[in-house]
Amino acid sequence: MPLVTLADSNPIKLCVVIVGLPARGKSFISQKIVRYLSWLSIPTKSFNCSQNLVQILKDSNITANDLFGTSYKHDDELLQQTRKVTLDQILDWFQKIDNCGVAIYDGINATKSERDIINASLEANNINTVFLESFCDDETLIKLNITDIESTSPEYATSTLEDTIHSVSNKIQFYDNVYEPLTTIDEASLSFIKLINFSSQIVLNRIDSYLKSRIVYYIMNLHVKNRYIWLSRHGESQYNLEGKIGGDASLSERGEKYAYKLVELTNKYIPNHDKLEIWTSTLKRTQQTAQFLPYPQKQWKALDELDAGSCDGLTYEEIAEKFPEDFKARDDNKFEYRYPGGESYRDVITRLEPIIMALENQENVLVITHQAVLRCIYAYFMNVHQEESPWVSIPLHTLIRLEIKAYGTQVTRIKADIPAVSTYKEKGTSKLGESKSSANLMAGAVISSTTDKVIS
Amino acid sequence: MPLVTLADSNPIKLCVVIVGLPARGKSFISQKIVRYLSWLSIPTKSFNCSQNLVQILKDSNITANDLFGTSYKHDDELLQQTRKVTLDQILDWFQKIDNCGVAIYDGINATKSERDIINASLEANNINTVFLESFCDDETLIKLNITDIESTSPEYATSTLEDTIHSVSNKIQFYDNVYEPLTTIDEASLSFIKLINFSSQIVLNRIDSYLKSRIVYYIMNLHVKNRYIWLSRHGESQYNLEGKIGGDASLSERGEKYAYKLVELTNKYIPNHDKLEIWTSTLKRTQQTAQFLPYPQKQWKALDELDAGSCDGLTYEEIAEKFPEDFKARDDNKFEYRYPGGESYRDVITRLEPIIMALENQENVLVITHQAVLRCIYAYFMNVHQEESPWVSIPLHTLIRLEIKAYGTQVTRIKADIPAVSTYKEKGTSKLGESKSSANLMAGAVISSTTDKVIS
Repeated sequence: MPLVTLADSNPIKLCVVIVGLPARGKSFISQKIVRYLSWLSIPTKSFNCSQNLVQILKDSNITANDLFGTSYKHDDELLQQTRKVTLDQILDWFQKIDNCGVAIYDGINATKSERDIINASLEANNINTVFLESFCDDETLIKLNITDIESTSPEYATSTLEDTIHSVSNKIQFYDNVYEPLTTIDEASLSFIKLINFSSQIVLNRIDSYLKSRIVYYIMNLHVKNRYIWLSRHGESQYNLEGKIGGDASLSERGEKYAYKLVELTNKYIPNHDKLEIWTSTLKRTQQTAQFLPYPQKQWKALDELDAGSCDGLTYEEIAEKFPEDFKARDDNKFEYRYPGGESYRDVITRLEPIIMALENQENVLVITHQAVLRCIYAYFMNVHQEESPWVSIPLHTLIRLEIKAYGTQVTRIKADIPAVSTYKEKGTSKLGESKSSANLMAGAVISSTTDKVIS
Repeated sequence: MPLVTLADSNPIKLCVVIVGLPARGKSFISQKIVRYLSWLSIPTKSFNCSQNLVQILKDSNITANDLFGTSYKHDDELLQQTRKVTLDQILDWFQKIDNCGVAIYDGINATKSERDIINASLEANNINTVFLESFCDDETLIKLNITDIESTSPEYATSTLEDTIHSVSNKIQFYDNVYEPLTTIDEASLSFIKLINFSSQIVLNRIDSYLKSRIVYYIMNLHVKNRYIWLSRHGESQYNLEGKIGGDASLSERGEKYAYKLVELTNKYIPNHDKLEIWTSTLKRTQQTAQFLPYPQKQWKALDELDAGSCDGLTYEEIAEKFPEDFKARDDNKFEYRYPGGESYRDVITRLEPIIMALENQENVLVITHQAVLRCIYAYFMNVHQEESPWVSIPLHTLIRLEIKAYGTQVTRIKADIPAVSTYKEKGTSKLGESKSSANLMAGAVISSTTDKVIS
């Protein structure tokens, strides 16, 4: 019997077809949707039309400048071929997944007739469609986007900023000549989301499913503003010292020291710390860690540690001895494994979803919580794959800075220089110790601009 | 230190100012928002302009027909006075609540100048504002709404349908002469939500906070279609027999009988049961209850019983003996009380929120879950006050039908005629037994059209 997360209560094959001129933040929105839905365990994949076009041009020995110059027309065969390749990739992918999945058709799709073709083709394959237009006439936003494209798009990896601006401008001009924005009059029968100047205004037409409404809700909460989110585990606890999991223990002596040290670290490293807000779980060890911090504090039940059910209060050795089958099952699929009467990582992600939504809306927050919970939050921001997320190393006595930018997140770890036990358990052992492979530390570095560095 | 639900992460004073001609479903939307946000523990109150006008007319010996006939103008002093009274009520109310609250100004607010006055007055009092227009030009929807007004509005309680249609039509005419819909051109600086023909199209302007985005998300998921949702507790379990709470016990012999009987009950009472879907929790007793039902089944972790933490597996007598202070604290404030290491009713509501959102989007679902969880779901649909919801009686071996209509929910309880122990614990005792006051059964009946009847 399938286990249901909040996300797949309505199994659905959905294609989000992106619409918009170049430099309208289309790929940013596509990537964020992919990251959010993947994190919620919905198979989601973005198909980039522009990359397909680059390949087709290469194969035909034509440069982008040729294409977007004066010699080609918008309805050129090259563009038709690109659309066909992208659609085929999407249909192939839907063949492979079973039940519930979301494809993002990340393209320009400038004209009504192109959109009609795509819609008809998806409908013929029983794939639900929603168009998502990013319409922008704010020159400042467009310029910002062009600069971002220069620094992040593989298409312009080897160009100078000047060259990129020139060729993006050419490209904008090329499509602008034929561009037909989505309107509720001409395309009233389509299901669509139209963002005007990012999300200062949004028009929704026929948003007729739960999944579509979730995507809208998520987009409404996105911000392009660069900002920091701060994370920390609680200080070392009595249970940590004893190698026990779960429980509601107090801090150890060294844990208390870390709590005290956090005052200095927040002062030194957090700009605008006068506006800082502290979020803790409802468990003692997180609240004791926050006890010396002179900032407003909030408790969230959703930040409580993964519930270990019958294994609460045991050491990993005891679990391996008392519940050998469970111990093995957990190592085999740590993301899905649920402790008897307790939770799995997937369960934790489901309850963390409102926290993520709130964090997308926030800056200047320090979240003091637990190992498994931090792994899940880290996985969202660093785009860590589901199977890897339960194995990420989040050491004790370390303040983590997430620098959230439009196209990726940079992580800096600030070590407090107060010793603590390691609570990292490598796969296949019941012993605790530092992660053997430093790869676990870097598990998030899958987006090129996403990095993770350590200050000690 | 305040405990944070997902809803009040950004403490805010927000006024939702409703805009729309008569018979546009304004009061329906207002009531739904009140019910949803109150259920999430956000103090929320609707202020009905029309009721204030009725009072003012009464005091002035003027009939509504006089006012909406030809002799009065839209900017009449009576309407100005009504606006002032409503605004004063809202400002008074915000004085009384501390941190986070939402007022609904349920009025027609037909012109830009009126809306400017309201906006300025709220801004001057540091109250955040979002306008919510229900714009409708679909005559079928308008007629449906007029019929609903006739059957539900206190204003027309004593009128015949004919008289109501006549006077509502007069009223519509009166306001339609001056009505200025919200547009992104004329009122670009306002934060607003514009629903066009209920929610087939939505325009969002400057939705700049988390709470506003949640309200939009909720409205997107609302439907006016009448439909059924079916609820049942699991069959009697071994733990029920022993008077123990929590755990993951199997069904008793009588519980098994109920599981078998459910096949007959669903056949007999559920129309379109061929399209029925069963939702259970991850606990054995709910899945065993569903075992004979030949319909697709889904498991939700969010439907698991309230976690009793350290008291899991104990009887109420044992809890009273071992944790006398906790036992008393729970009786004193059952909604807020959290078992050590476990959950409170408030915690359960937080995790049930996605279930409610999914149920607003569904019909033909039978939810088989647990006493506390059903109390929370029941409280949402029946508008039960927070303090009363943990005391609602939801007996074993009873199929509950919620008939969800635009302006209220009707409950029918279908008794399976299979004996079971009572798991109802009256306040101040550790003994279990049938609820002494039948009032507990009827706790939901606070909306006039909301009723609860029993078939046995």
